[in-house]
Amino acid sequence: MQKGVTFPRGFLAGAGKARIKGDRADREDVALIYSEVPASAAGVFTRNLVRSAPVELTEEHLRRTAGRLRAVVANSGNANACNGLSGMEAARRMAAAAAAALNLTEDRIAVASTGVVGMPFPIAKAEAGIAAAARGLSGDGGSVAARAIMTTDTFAKETAATFSCGGRVCSVGGMAKGSGMIHPDMATMLAFLTTDAPVEPSALHLALTAAVKRTFNAVTVDGDTSPNDTVLVLANGVAGGEAIGTASPGYPLFAAALEEACRDLSRQIARDGEGATCLVEVRVEGADDEEQARRIARTVARSPLVKAAVHGRDPNWGRILVAAGYAGVPFDPARAAIFIGAVPVARNGTALPFDEAAAGRELAAPEVCLRLVVGDGGGAATAWGCDLSAEYVRINADYRS
Amino acid sequence: MQKGVTFPRGFLAGAGKARIKGDRADREDVALIYSEVPASAAGVFTRNLVRSAPVELTEEHLRRTAGRLRAVVANSGNANACNGLSGMEAARRMAAAAAAALNLTEDRIAVASTGVVGMPFPIAKAEAGIAAAARGLSGDGGSVAARAIMTTDTFAKETAATFSCGGRVCSVGGMAKGSGMIHPDMATMLAFLTTDAPVEPSALHLALTAAVKRTFNAVTVDGDTSPNDTVLVLANGVAGGEAIGTASPGYPLFAAALEEACRDLSRQIARDGEGATCLVEVRVEGADDEEQARRIARTVARSPLVKAAVHGRDPNWGRILVAAGYAGVPFDPARAAIFIGAVPVARNGTALPFDEAAAGRELAAPEVCLRLVVGDGGGAATAWGCDLSAEYVRINADYRS
Repeated sequence: MQKGVTFPRGFLAGAGKARIKGDRADREDVALIYSEVPASAAGVFTRNLVRSAPVELTEEHLRRTAGRLRAVVANSGNANACNGLSGMEAARRMAAAAAAALNLTEDRIAVASTGVVGMPFPIAKAEAGIAAAARGLSGDGGSVAARAIMTTDTFAKETAATFSCGGRVCSVGGMAKGSGMIHPDMATMLAFLTTDAPVEPSALHLALTAAVKRTFNAVTVDGDTSPNDTVLVLANGVAGGEAIGTASPGYPLFAAALEEACRDLSRQIARDGEGATCLVEVRVEGADDEEQARRIARTVARSPLVKAAVHGRDPNWGRILVAAGYAGVPFDPARAAIFIGAVPVARNGTALPFDEAAAGRELAAPEVCLRLVVGDGGGAATAWGCDLSAEYVRINADYRS
Repeated sequence: MQKGVTFPRGFLAGAGKARIKGDRADREDVALIYSEVPASAAGVFTRNLVRSAPVELTEEHLRRTAGRLRAVVANSGNANACNGLSGMEAARRMAAAAAAALNLTEDRIAVASTGVVGMPFPIAKAEAGIAAAARGLSGDGGSVAARAIMTTDTFAKETAATFSCGGRVCSVGGMAKGSGMIHPDMATMLAFLTTDAPVEPSALHLALTAAVKRTFNAVTVDGDTSPNDTVLVLANGVAGGEAIGTASPGYPLFAAALEEACRDLSRQIARDGEGATCLVEVRVEGADDEEQARRIARTVARSPLVKAAVHGRDPNWGRILVAAGYAGVPFDPARAAIFIGAVPVARNGTALPFDEAAAGRELAAPEVCLRLVVGDGGGAATAWGCDLSAEYVRINADYRS
């Protein structure tokens, strides 16, 4: 099935070689996404106190245009963070270069960067790459754009979803780059989504915020963000039909499709965590509410000892319960039950006799599911992570060079 | 210089082989510390919702005796956590075995365990080990006891400090086992301190709580605790002199010596983090208050990307600033300065030109100091961590076997 940011109608994408990391890096490292017609836009950004210049600029543009952007320009290789005034100047010049190539005003452009923090940004190189990307814009350029924003990702991440609204089929497409870690620490997560549904800016913002909470934020941990984390969505209405506001019958349909696309990208990011050999899905049930369940799930998925045990295919369930115990959410450990895949390994907070071979097989799957029932409340949530391997350390011990 | 729990007068220690992890583990795995005369006692315990049976029991004994314990019995190899009622029964039998051997009542005994969570506790083996440890009690048994509580520690951790009070020299001694991680996640930290100073239980508790906040809790992270974390201190008054209460002139002298002993043990725990090749000291200055400074310092010291960069001797200062940015403490990144050892690498939140070779040499030291100035406030604090190596993953991928 076709997917990516050019899957919805009226969107073009392309990429260019700017050699932002130097001449040795001979690959596309600038991506451009363009809506052929005016579009609504919404964004969710890092909560880190340290914010990259592109994040500051894109928020400024969303405010100035009241959520009406036409294009996204993004680069890999340099985060343009902690670069002071010259960093902001570079981000503005990226927007200006894209605006010139697309015959738009600068404030219609979103800018995003990912890569090393605190290194001077080679803006002249980036400008040349943007011009090249604009020349190559096409209706099937989604994949080349998705590859251009990769850093330590091992595969490009794209998605698609559709929904019907008033007799018309609308599409949602998206691309993302993974964070270095499965629970982004300082590595950057970027995700760009497109839709041809006619969604108003306020409805777009509401749907994006809700989807991010259940998807991208279930991969990351609150506050554990890079200076560059950005999730953006553009809606150009090319599918036609009546405008979708928050009270429209089409709103829940659109919101569900957007969440589906975000979840798919989130799972791809988790599966591609640095050094990961498997996706770890942590499901928590029986909490007082969804938010508490998610907090426990994220804490378990983040635990280095749980991650290392999964890597070693070791059904060391005590680490799961103990990680839950420091999530900051009240529950009674003496009533908790734990499952590794389909295998129940603990009940009432203590060990069950279980088939170690069967549990080992569950842990050897490419998608490992850990399930924790913490009580009889109605709150349930899922978080996604990966295992922790020696390869992770190798990648991060000398990332800059 | 002599050190350890038998450095202060009137304390004996010993160890026995209980083979708690099985017959292949032919080493002392039960430790006993005994005061020859009645002693005051105070303890600080895990804040995890999941609490081991020994933690529950020791708190109960401290309450019942109003802080008057005589002995500590501790084992490695099994945490006796998540074992339900049989776990509590095993902890009581450990106390009973020590009480019988020492001719005390059970409630004068503190119990501590460390090892795998959720495995049935082999209490009969432990009882035999306790009897053997009691037979071997001696005035220079501190070191053998310190070795008996090791798990993945690569060296035994002991300390000593002295102070003068009313013309008498008083001693503080201590031993600890490290956590698996430098910022204990689910691995256990145990520390036992002794003093021959005549400190009243309430003063002992106050001094211990204050010292732990600045030392052991600057190695761990709030809430990031094992079910077994325990810091205990016994004061037997054998040095003589007037009782030390919180208002005594001797109190600040004792408190300072206790904190010094706790800091030394904390640094040893950090240096011996699993797979660590160096100690990382993170110093934060210029915060609004000490607690905020400590929160930032701990967040930086905990960051896997900072730890991996130190391991690679990579002066990637952006990771330090960005980790500080998600500590949850307000500060202005655009005013922050960063030093790697003596080398200034960033000022006003952006890069300084610096000598990479000099920074690399600072990072190659056995004790790496990262310093972050976040403003002009008076709050300063230090946290201790270590680097993150591939060896950490190897150790934790299959810890149980």
